[in-house]
Order: sequence, then C-alpha cells, then structure tokens
Amino acid sequence: MNERFLKACRRQPVDCTPVWFMRQAGRYMREYQAVRAKHSILEVCKTPDLAAQVTLQPIDRFPLDAAIIFADILLPLEPMGLNVSFSEGEGPVIGNPVRDRATVERLRVTDGEELRYVEDAIKQARKALARRVPLIGFAGAPFTLASYAIEGGGSKNFIATKQFMYREPEAWHKLMDKLARVVTGYLRRQIRAGAEAVQLFDSWVGCLSPGDYAEYVLPHVQLIFEGLKREGVPLIHFGTGTATLLKLMREAGGDVIGVDWRVRLDEAWATIGYDVAIQGNLDPVLLFAPLHEIERRVEDILRRAAGRPGHIFNLGHGILPNTPVEHVAAVVELVHKLSQR
Amino acid sequence: MNERFLKACRRQPVDCTPVWFMRQAGRYMREYQAVRAKHSILEVCKTPDLAAQVTLQPIDRFPLDAAIIFADILLPLEPMGLNVSFSEGEGPVIGNPVRDRATVERLRVTDGEELRYVEDAIKQARKALARRVPLIGFAGAPFTLASYAIEGGGSKNFIATKQFMYREPEAWHKLMDKLARVVTGYLRRQIRAGAEAVQLFDSWVGCLSPGDYAEYVLPHVQLIFEGLKREGVPLIHFGTGTATLLKLMREAGGDVIGVDWRVRLDEAWATIGYDVAIQGNLDPVLLFAPLHEIERRVEDILRRAAGRPGHIFNLGHGILPNTPVEHVAAVVELVHKLSQR
Repeated sequence: MNERFLKACRRQPVDCTPVWFMRQAGRYMREYQAVRAKHSILEVCKTPDLAAQVTLQPIDRFPLDAAIIFADILLPLEPMGLNVSFSEGEGPVIGNPVRDRATVERLRVTDGEELRYVEDAIKQARKALARRVPLIGFAGAPFTLASYAIEGGGSKNFIATKQFMYREPEAWHKLMDKLARVVTGYLRRQIRAGAEAVQLFDSWVGCLSPGDYAEYVLPHVQLIFEGLKREGVPLIHFGTGTATLLKLMREAGGDVIGVDWRVRLDEAWATIGYDVAIQGNLDPVLLFAPLHEIERRVEDILRRAAGRPGHIFNLGHGILPNTPVEHVAAVVELVHKLSQR
Repeated sequence: MNERFLKACRRQPVDCTPVWFMRQAGRYMREYQAVRAKHSILEVCKTPDLAAQVTLQPIDRFPLDAAIIFADILLPLEPMGLNVSFSEGEGPVIGNPVRDRATVERLRVTDGEELRYVEDAIKQARKALARRVPLIGFAGAPFTLASYAIEGGGSKNFIATKQFMYREPEAWHKLMDKLARVVTGYLRRQIRAGAEAVQLFDSWVGCLSPGDYAEYVLPHVQLIFEGLKREGVPLIHFGTGTATLLKLMREAGGDVIGVDWRVRLDEAWATIGYDVAIQGNLDPVLLFAPLHEIERRVEDILRRAAGRPGHIFNLGHGILPNTPVEHVAAVVELVHKLSQR
C-alpha cells in the first residue's frame, strides 16, 4: 500500500510529500456530477454503494495519497433529533434549530447505530480501494456542529451561536458535551469499520477569540481526542481562520493539525511544535489561477515545510465547485515532483 | 474639548482609556430607527442635516470619547461608475459589478467633488458637536471596496474577488490603484472639511494569506497612508481576521492599528510594536451577554493593554442591530471606570 500519508501523520520520513484534498470527491468532477444528477447528497451518504463509489472517483483519477469517505458532517445531528436537509445552492438547513435549554435537553446521545450506513460505506470503500491508499474517516467538531444546530444552517458571523454561548453557558456546555460524546462514538465506529485515520472538522471555530475557545470549546474537543487515542490511528484536527487558536487546538488534541492559507505554514508549525504533524495549506481559490502561479504557491508551501517529516499537503479548505480538474491534477503532480527526497 | 481619543492616537498619557464604537450610530438605537423609518441609508448619507443628526445621536446618549461621521464605505464607488443600492436586510448590491479588465478601465478616478455631501455633513456635525468630542472621518480600503465591486455585494468566501486577483493581476492592480487614489482624495477632503482623525476600513482583508496581502494589497494601502501623512491628523488602519497580517498592515501604514477579538490585545500590540497605538477589541456579540460577563471581558482587555499609553477601546467590528442599548452604556462606563489612572 501507498503508506506516505500514514507515515507523514506519524512524522516518519517519506519519499515525497503526501497529498489529498478536502472535498476531493465533489462537484468539480464530472463523474461526481453524474451521480448527483440522480441522487441527493443525503441519498449518496446513506447508500453505501454510492458513497463508496464517489469516494473512489478522485482516487481513480489522480495519484492521491489518501481517500476520504464521502459523507456530510451534519449526519450525526439527525439521530440526535434535528431535521437536516440540503437545498441546492443554499447549503444545509436545520428545520428545528436549537434555541433554548429545553431543546438541548431533548437531544438524544445516540450510540451511532443509526449511522451504520457510514460504517458500511467505509467497509465497501476499503474493499474497492484494495489497499491502494489509506481511507480517512471524519466528523464535524462540536463547535461547528453546534453552530449549524443553533443557526439553523450556515452562517457568516455566528451571532446566534455566540449569543447562546454567552447567555446560556450551562445549556451550551450540555450541548457541546452531547455533541462530543456522539462524535466520539461515531468516529470510533468509523475506525472499527476500517477508517485508517480520522479528521475532526472544526471548520468555523475561527470566529472565536482564544479566550472563548479555551473556555467554551477546548474541553469538549479534548474529550473526543482522549476517547479516540487508544484506537491507534492518526487523528487530524482541522479548522479555518485558526491562526490565534493553534496552540489551544494542539492542546485539545490531534496527531496532525490542519491549517488554512491565512497563516504561513512554517510559522504555524513553529507555533504548534514539531512534535505534531501539519496539514495544509493552499487557498482553494488558487486552483483557479494560471498554472505558473499555482506552481509558485506549491513551491512556497513545500519550502516552508522544509522537508521536515510530518507535512501532509492539502488545501486550507475544501475544493470549490467549479475548480478546473486539470489544475487539481497539476497540484498532485507538482507536490510529488517538487518534494522528492 | 475631550482630548482623550486624540491623545491616545498619539500615544500620549490620558486620565482614562478613550472609547468609541464602530457603527455607534445604528439600528440598535431607537433615535436612529426613527430617522431610518423615514429615510433610506443613502438618503441619510446624502443629506448633510440627517447625516450630522445621526452622527450626534450616540454622543448625546453616551459619554463616548469620539464621534464618527455617518456615511457608508461604498459611497465612493458611485462616482466611479458603479451602481450602489441597499436592500433592507440583504446589505449592499452593486448592480454592475466589475468582472473584467474593460470595466476596470472605464472606472472614473473621481476627485471626490461628487461626495461633497460628506464634507458638508462633517462641517455640520463639527458645528453641532461644539468641540465636545473629536469627529472621525472614514473610508473603505481598496481591497474591501474591490471585493464589493467584484462580488456585486457582500461575500462569505470572496471567491470571485480572489479569482479576479489571481487570473487578472494587471487589471487587479489597476483597479486597486484607482480605488487607492479615489480613497486618498476622499479622505483628504474629509480632513480638510474638519475630520480630526480618519479610519481606513479594510474589513474583509482577513480572507487573504499574508503573501497575497503583501503582493496584491499592501502597496495600494501604503499609497493612501503616504498621501495623508502630511495632513497631520491620526490615521487608523482597521481590519478583521487580521492576526497574521498585523505586521504587514503596520508596514502599510497608520498611527493606530485596529484589531478584532480573534487576537489577544497584548499579543497584537507586541506584534505591531509599541510605537503605534492600538484600537479594540471586544467581540460585538459580547454586548448580548449578561453584564457580569461583559465586565469580565472589558477587564481582560484593559489588563492586556496594561495602562500603556496608546490604547483606544472599541469593538472588534460594528455594533450589531439588536444590541441592548443599556449594555453599550455599561461598556462606556466600565472602560472609563476600570481604566482610571
């Protein structure tokens, strides 16, 4: 098997820098669009055949160093009692958002049995991958899930989320604790079904001050990483806009810290310490730039990683819908070529 | 006159920390709503009587240490040739967004004569203030203005803006140069009309990597600050999500650097250096928290400022529409009380 990704997660030397992309199975690929023309996001997620098929699409097309199971971070909210739907172009909608303590009390701490379809998708994807590359499982982190649950969907400024946090701190911690327990069980199931690494997506946590992160988020994330340690697979901790939270995120846990383009990779690594691996950090919009510009940026990131074992190349966030496929291919090739030891 | 604000801008000792708020004249005040019930935002901006009246409303209500002229950052886009309108609740809309080099070429570099209504508002507000507190003028910074011009309105991820920047670097620099020249002239006119300090709002620049900021933004902002230096009034340089850009923003210019809540004030100040003043940095959502929580956060910010001359208390961004008025009053009082030398 191509072990580059797993070795880099463990900060072991590799022949060249491993690369995968968040949302590498996505709308920018015609193969994916063909599946989505017939099935909704939730249908694909809940049909292991389809989820596995879509998971493999980028692996069949590009020499990527890892696959990531196709799923959505909001899936665990359903069995907890929230109504999740996706409107085309508008993103996710929670029909019955969390607005008070009573709603928090009613949320079920599921053991993840209802999400067995993800485990089945992982098993099928592993089989189809036939040990070509490792398979990554994932889940949304408590803050990011709480933000969707409270805002009722995506948000620009997370005003309702923060208001809830400041005004109802006890209910907030209860909500975060429930989410953390559900996420821990869900990720454990993914690992036991065959996920060879897992990534926790705290995509929107960068809207918080360091003080708020430490007080309202960190202990709950810590619970998740503590709970997964003994599973023995690499744990990736990712967020965007987290330049001032990196030390705290590292304290919360993870063998690999994912960073976005707003922070220079060398400065980020110096901040989190060289005893953890780092993942990132090309701006996804750069994939729309001319190739010579892309090459300049890939080079810059690799130069900042300085050949130190423990760098996994990725974007700072997911691949965008209209990204040129050939630029994705170019980045994979450039990373491998320019990082050869 | 209450000189606290101007003294702090110049890092001179003050009896207690000055405080003002971005969007201190806004929907959270009933007096403001009464004016807006009868007039659109653009009407208020373009009617010096009304703009001056609204500017004074928070000054009459709270013991603030500065007034800021009521206006909108997008006003200069109109005489440049862009159609700006405001839809209630949806924010600004540019009817004919900039999508190619030809549109950039057609944009007029106005000398600001068409914006004389802002100068008139400043004159009237100065008169009405009767030297109670100084009056701040302001403008949007080139990147933030370019993002509205290109996206056609507000944006979450600034994808069109960055695509334009990466794909059409020459047209981008041309656009930024035109905006920088217009903004310089506009701010100079504001100062000559009576603005006793000016703030440059680069509200959305935090979506960029430090490398992109240095290459695509910094030189244009530098032009503005260079062009205003000899006017002799304090220049404030503000952005959000700028933790990794602070050194570069400082290099671009400004006597005061404004920071948001995502960065700790003491760390931000150490980063930009103690030879500039600092403004910030309470999360506007904290004004919705209970008073004891607000007090704890105000204390924390003042403690991080450590009594060093050159701190101006502010929020990390504008006051939000439904903010409780009594909490705004409480923060002004707390800042003055807790910072007494």
